[in-house]
Amino acid sequence: MAPNESVNDDVQATLEQLHGIRRSIDNIDAALVHLLAERFKFTQQVGTLKALHGLPPADPEREKQQIQRLRALAEESHLDPEFAEKWFNFVVAEVIHHHLAAAAATGQES
Amino acid sequence: MAPNESVNDDVQATLEQLHGIRRSIDNIDAALVHLLAERFKFTQQVGTLKALHGLPPADPEREKQQIQRLRALAEESHLDPEFAEKWFNFVVAEVIHHHLAAAAATGQES
Repeated sequence: MAPNESVNDDVQATLEQLHGIRRSIDNIDAALVHLLAERFKFTQQVGTLKALHGLPPADPEREKQQIQRLRALAEESHLDPEFAEKWFNFVVAEVIHHHLAAAAATGQES
Repeated sequence: MAPNESVNDDVQATLEQLHGIRRSIDNIDAALVHLLAERFKFTQQVGTLKALHGLPPADPEREKQQIQRLRALAEESHLDPEFAEKWFNFVVAEVIHHHLAAAAATGQES
């Protein structure tokens, strides 16, 4: 066993390292939230267009293409493609929920 | 009723508008995937550090602060804060899953 002092130094160094990494994660999260906000502005435009023209809120063919593309981008950037797909489905579920609300607001059937 | 030709023109204009918006969504999604990949690189570093030092994979106090901050950022950028929180929890669940795997790989208890 190392004496207490060097254990404390080790803990201190680890915590500093952890805080540095967490500051990077916080910066990335701020960027992610702002990009998600921008994405929803665009999907809201899609929702309004679809509702006005009576188009269905979901588009399975488009979603299939998006998933293929995102999985490829994930592999390229060393992100787990399974996670990228689950993440995309999670975001799309929220978008479709918004589209249904837009359709209800304009009195169109979903 | 408008004659068929102007209905077709209207459909054509709507589809063009839809494709334009979708190209923007695709650009944003590529940026989101790359940022998520970068986020996971950092959380993997956190996972390795935690596993090496026997720290628990989850950190409820840190997560609470992150959620508060992300909700505030979401409000500022007109993103639904409820969605931002659900989205964050979804990403963190994956991160903790990775941390548990890292702990198992280094033979530490979770």
